[in-house]
Amino acid sequence: MSKPTLYTCFSPALLHLYDVKRTIVVVIDVLRATSTIATALYNGAREIIPVDSVERCIQLGTQIECITAGERDGQVAPGLQYGNSSFEYPESFIKGKILVLTTTNGTKLLHMALAKGATEIITGSFLNLSAVCDHLIAMKKNVILGCAAWKDKPNLEDTLFAGAVVSKIKEHFSINCDASHIAENLYGIAKDDMYEFLKKNDASHYHRLANYGLERDLRQCLTPDIANVLPEYLDGKLVLQR
Amino acid sequence: MSKPTLYTCFSPALLHLYDVKRTIVVVIDVLRATSTIATALYNGAREIIPVDSVERCIQLGTQIECITAGERDGQVAPGLQYGNSSFEYPESFIKGKILVLTTTNGTKLLHMALAKGATEIITGSFLNLSAVCDHLIAMKKNVILGCAAWKDKPNLEDTLFAGAVVSKIKEHFSINCDASHIAENLYGIAKDDMYEFLKKNDASHYHRLANYGLERDLRQCLTPDIANVLPEYLDGKLVLQR
Repeated sequence: MSKPTLYTCFSPALLHLYDVKRTIVVVIDVLRATSTIATALYNGAREIIPVDSVERCIQLGTQIECITAGERDGQVAPGLQYGNSSFEYPESFIKGKILVLTTTNGTKLLHMALAKGATEIITGSFLNLSAVCDHLIAMKKNVILGCAAWKDKPNLEDTLFAGAVVSKIKEHFSINCDASHIAENLYGIAKDDMYEFLKKNDASHYHRLANYGLERDLRQCLTPDIANVLPEYLDGKLVLQR
Repeated sequence: MSKPTLYTCFSPALLHLYDVKRTIVVVIDVLRATSTIATALYNGAREIIPVDSVERCIQLGTQIECITAGERDGQVAPGLQYGNSSFEYPESFIKGKILVLTTTNGTKLLHMALAKGATEIITGSFLNLSAVCDHLIAMKKNVILGCAAWKDKPNLEDTLFAGAVVSKIKEHFSINCDASHIAENLYGIAKDDMYEFLKKNDASHYHRLANYGLERDLRQCLTPDIANVLPEYLDGKLVLQR
């Protein structure tokens, strides 16, 4: 039997080039949406509703019992209760609750993958790297690693995560995709100290977060398997896959 | 005085994200359009008219005295005279002549850069790497390294060339662009043997050309500075910059 295909898509603005139907799409938004999603679900959140604007988040907060969260320029956005740091969502706080999370780039890509008919949409981050890889290997289906990017511009951290996945599962897939090779090679250089790699390369998102004093968040978001769950996007909500 | 900016654009489908106005756009189509363009001009071609279809190429061939060239699936396209290999354009053949060259991805990007109001459009390949770098440093203007890609999908060889340029001119520019850092890191891994790098990474375009028996072309297209001229796109034609 021929192997399923694996593609890496560097930006939501390139998703139309790939055949999303009958495909598992992994949405990747390492700093910090998909890292926070993995953490909150790992710590027992009942579900996470990703929304693309602060206004929508505030609106949902008035309609259902939930935690509203989102940041603008590194601060909790006006009208919301919490921020985007995974440190804000320990088990003692988030267990059993619904989290409504504002995330511009990640939510956009989730909606696009849904609209284009993906078979399954999951979220990936270093915090749940192994769960994602084990699942993709087990499913034996075509895969697109979808980087949320930054306002559609490719970024280092999402590309690095795509490269980590490629390096771990490539034997199981047919990879006729230069973007996947670019990502894997990048990960090969960076893997021994991804924090230093981002710092040295002056990654634009690293820069933004470091300026806000969020180095601890950055290090957390680059730590493999500390929230090793499999978030799936179903009916507009992210839940643990059963 | 602040430094000019430098961005790398992995695909024509991402060009809208960058501010092309008041910018020098370097069109990069390493395998093989911009390599052949450098070679033909280096060997004395009077001008090169890039067109985006075989039909347009044939049509121009009936209207002006010129060489028509283009390939489909590694063979000279039906109705045209010559192919895309730089080896077909020695000085003894091409000097003083007009070459009409069919190139899908590269021509598309040339037209886009023109439509978006670029200050200057030049073409880059390893064959004229130093000429491009020296020019960009001297001009002190904002730069976009535009990869022609393959049907809008990012590719290894154009990304590698962008990385080579970044590595050589970065001190002269302000680079707030993760794609440039990705490209530079990739070039850092590959530079000692780019042919082996493409082969090892099973680059999709390498694969296509190698299947057609074009290894010699591939090696040629990865050799720096053997046709070290500066092609500029002016009034629909590529000419040596005066």
